[in-house]
Amino acid sequence: MRFQQLLHVRRLASAGATTLMRRPITTTTTTSRTVLPATHPAFATTVRTMAGSGAPIPELTEITDNVQRGNYATLTDKDVAHFEQLLGKNFVLTEDLEGYNICFLKRIRGNSKLVLKPGSTAEVAAILKYCNERRLAVVPQGGNTGLVGGSVPICDEIVLSLARLNKVLSVDEVTGIAVVEAGCILENFDQRAREVGLTVPLDLGAKASCHIGGNVSTNAGGVRVVRYGNLHGSVLGVEAVLATGQVLDLMSNFKKDNTGYHMKHLFIGSEGTLGVVTKLSMLCPHSSRAVNVAFIGLNSFDDVLKTFVSAKRNLGEILSSCELIDERALNTALQQFKFLNSPISGFPFYMLIETSGSNGDHDEEKINQFIGDGMERGEIQDGTVTGDPGKVQEIWKIREMVPLGLIEKSFCFKYDISLPLRDFYNIVDVMRERCGPLATVVCGYGHLGDSNLHLNVSCEEFNDEIYKRVEPFVYEYTSKLKGSISAEHGIGFLKKDYLHYSKDPVAIGYMREMKKLLDPNSILNPYKVLN
Amino acid sequence: MRFQQLLHVRRLASAGATTLMRRPITTTTTTSRTVLPATHPAFATTVRTMAGSGAPIPELTEITDNVQRGNYATLTDKDVAHFEQLLGKNFVLTEDLEGYNICFLKRIRGNSKLVLKPGSTAEVAAILKYCNERRLAVVPQGGNTGLVGGSVPICDEIVLSLARLNKVLSVDEVTGIAVVEAGCILENFDQRAREVGLTVPLDLGAKASCHIGGNVSTNAGGVRVVRYGNLHGSVLGVEAVLATGQVLDLMSNFKKDNTGYHMKHLFIGSEGTLGVVTKLSMLCPHSSRAVNVAFIGLNSFDDVLKTFVSAKRNLGEILSSCELIDERALNTALQQFKFLNSPISGFPFYMLIETSGSNGDHDEEKINQFIGDGMERGEIQDGTVTGDPGKVQEIWKIREMVPLGLIEKSFCFKYDISLPLRDFYNIVDVMRERCGPLATVVCGYGHLGDSNLHLNVSCEEFNDEIYKRVEPFVYEYTSKLKGSISAEHGIGFLKKDYLHYSKDPVAIGYMREMKKLLDPNSILNPYKVLN
Repeated sequence: MRFQQLLHVRRLASAGATTLMRRPITTTTTTSRTVLPATHPAFATTVRTMAGSGAPIPELTEITDNVQRGNYATLTDKDVAHFEQLLGKNFVLTEDLEGYNICFLKRIRGNSKLVLKPGSTAEVAAILKYCNERRLAVVPQGGNTGLVGGSVPICDEIVLSLARLNKVLSVDEVTGIAVVEAGCILENFDQRAREVGLTVPLDLGAKASCHIGGNVSTNAGGVRVVRYGNLHGSVLGVEAVLATGQVLDLMSNFKKDNTGYHMKHLFIGSEGTLGVVTKLSMLCPHSSRAVNVAFIGLNSFDDVLKTFVSAKRNLGEILSSCELIDERALNTALQQFKFLNSPISGFPFYMLIETSGSNGDHDEEKINQFIGDGMERGEIQDGTVTGDPGKVQEIWKIREMVPLGLIEKSFCFKYDISLPLRDFYNIVDVMRERCGPLATVVCGYGHLGDSNLHLNVSCEEFNDEIYKRVEPFVYEYTSKLKGSISAEHGIGFLKKDYLHYSKDPVAIGYMREMKKLLDPNSILNPYKVLN
Repeated sequence: MRFQQLLHVRRLASAGATTLMRRPITTTTTTSRTVLPATHPAFATTVRTMAGSGAPIPELTEITDNVQRGNYATLTDKDVAHFEQLLGKNFVLTEDLEGYNICFLKRIRGNSKLVLKPGSTAEVAAILKYCNERRLAVVPQGGNTGLVGGSVPICDEIVLSLARLNKVLSVDEVTGIAVVEAGCILENFDQRAREVGLTVPLDLGAKASCHIGGNVSTNAGGVRVVRYGNLHGSVLGVEAVLATGQVLDLMSNFKKDNTGYHMKHLFIGSEGTLGVVTKLSMLCPHSSRAVNVAFIGLNSFDDVLKTFVSAKRNLGEILSSCELIDERALNTALQQFKFLNSPISGFPFYMLIETSGSNGDHDEEKINQFIGDGMERGEIQDGTVTGDPGKVQEIWKIREMVPLGLIEKSFCFKYDISLPLRDFYNIVDVMRERCGPLATVVCGYGHLGDSNLHLNVSCEEFNDEIYKRVEPFVYEYTSKLKGSISAEHGIGFLKKDYLHYSKDPVAIGYMREMKKLLDPNSILNPYKVLN
């Protein structure tokens, strides 16, 4: 039986999904993923244009959430004229601002009357200096793909778009160090790195839209953390403009620089509340010659854990992703997006395991051994392994469409938590029981390799009864296990009332002090992170 | 000719230095290195005991460097009695304090009258609260192996030794996350990790003495940064006691935690001036099943660079160290330490390249291919490759004795700089010319893979003329190339006057503000980092 299962994997392989023979691999195409087909309706509703979107525009958050506007000045014509003189009229927008006011999830809607698009660090500095003196509140905005409402105004903050600061300034093939402006789209940055055989050590579903500066400001995670670690390790230097307009040059083009306090980290993950990141340097690893992906089915979460441990041990240095998708998450995506093809079906759990290495033959041997052993032990039930760039993309597309499947025709309560692996999946079962038939789908997927679960509860439309059953229970549950209530999405506007579940009062107190020190008039991204 | 050279490598191999055949590899012994033989005179002169050392005890630094003592209180008998009551008499030392007062290089000597050895975070907190109220200055001390005088008193600061906080609290085999107290010796921590198949992602010459808390406080680098990155990526959480006695709990047992400002990084590399690290959690990778080391000779620095690029491309994910030693550095070590055996000689440059991977056969194939190609291209002249644990240790010992060889019978001006790779070695030639026959040895070695050069100028005894020729020239030179004047050693006492060569005035200004915020009475490690 087990042998047959093993054969089954190989059979799937020879049927087209897998090429286990030696093959020429083109690095440039191997890991270049189309995140979404451009024609797909999920992208037609881009937040930037809102054109053609049938999704309802939400009410103003200031009203729905009863937000008390801060004691800021109100924008005047004189202010607008000042900015027009500073930037030129083309880069001062006062009309058609919906795309800048509404968050990616269409849950938060601000009421900004002004979007500024500076073209240099000096212009960012001049804008902030003016706003600080005038007490005008500002929200820095990158690709606006965040999931916690961190990049949109809540009231009438001025939107400071980094979109024009979009250049890759240098890429050093030998050291792997790249210098890039904050507004560069992640995918463009990665493409430029790939031209010289490097890759950006960050990959996430929104890569076609998100900005690298936004990634750094939110300490974005994604699917490669298991291999390359987080941005605190990869970002070597940062240039940040403070609320006062002072430019804090914390750039470095070196892996090692122990000269004084490592303050750049204050701007990694502080969501634009302490300063505006305008430039950064990043360590980019060599792009891998070989990329293989396994998509496997498992019967229990216990088997999932065993398979993860086996992957760490046996794939070791070539393991580059270890993702979990549960049955309900997968099936929802498959139902919503008919263009998706899952090579296997009928299992309660699925894992996507990726390897990236410098020698295709060696990597194939390792991954085949790993799969074979897992099947012999009865931990892996079925699956497919492929190194074909097109097939690799197809499998990744399944994973990448999972979050979109859940919001395609539903309202979805989304949670992004770190939990101990032994308790990783329990919360999904617990939540399913708590919600009962009120919820359409209660499911879990995410970055198993980083202990990072995306718990989702979807229903036809926002439902207050579900809301009460889910929150703050999910935060209390996570806190009891000493987990993180926001593993990678950040705090933004949506989670600021829950920060205390993961941070102790002394730490929150010093966060407030840091905020006062770096942004004394609190003009930067108000109503976010700290309440 | 080239073929013969290639054969020569293989011949050396078959003569004993190399085992290229498949072999059983025991992970626990493969990478466990004896840094120094216990009987070696260089270790008999340990700073802790000074027993048996013929090296002269330096003058008090307060006098030699004309240090203006800060406006601190002076220790009284009442203070000592208070601490005895708090910690117990055994942990309050007032005699035989030389080992705590003198730095590893025997260059800095303080005049502390009191060493405290707390046994818990609560005791550290109680000590600091008392000292802060009394305005008593404190220097936190780990293994006291730092090279910039950061861990010894300059005047009469109380020494706060972390030596009793030495427990490994937990090691999670599945996630790779370990929790450890600050005073645990790095080698002990690594041994504990290896018991469950993990390894600490930090390795440096002082591992048998240095404390993990000291490593974190100085953001220690070492020989594995090329593979595992720096501590900002590996340290997941920190517990730090502030000068006020407040305990700042920034611990996390997760790779991902985006809840608020990432303040833990302020304690990584701030050299005990912002708080005392008492506990931390660290991500430990699986220990490698196979470790191979190549020691190769090269004719030019240009060949060194080409070989580094080739190593990055061809060894890729298994490359775990890439070290450079120049001829003079190697020869000095070989002259001083007769027990060292270099497998090759007669080249101007040597590289030590280490691989660590999960499959010995695959790794050997990669490293042999890499060496063979390098020899065929004429970039690598000769060398040896070995996977035998004993031989691996022997080769590492050569590298590890290099810095000690330079101080064995000489005074040595030591610099630790990051430089662009294209200019990496020029400074050594430039300095050799500047010093002329005044210097005994001017040499360079270090972590080529991280662009981190250790430039050394040694002479029979301290020589003011050499000093003037070397400083501040070396800092100006580094600054012009936008390098770092302290790549991994930190600023401490010795480099605080040179900080401005690598940090801009706005950044230094905010460093001062951070210091004021976290240590308002400036009792923590005064006379260090900021002047």
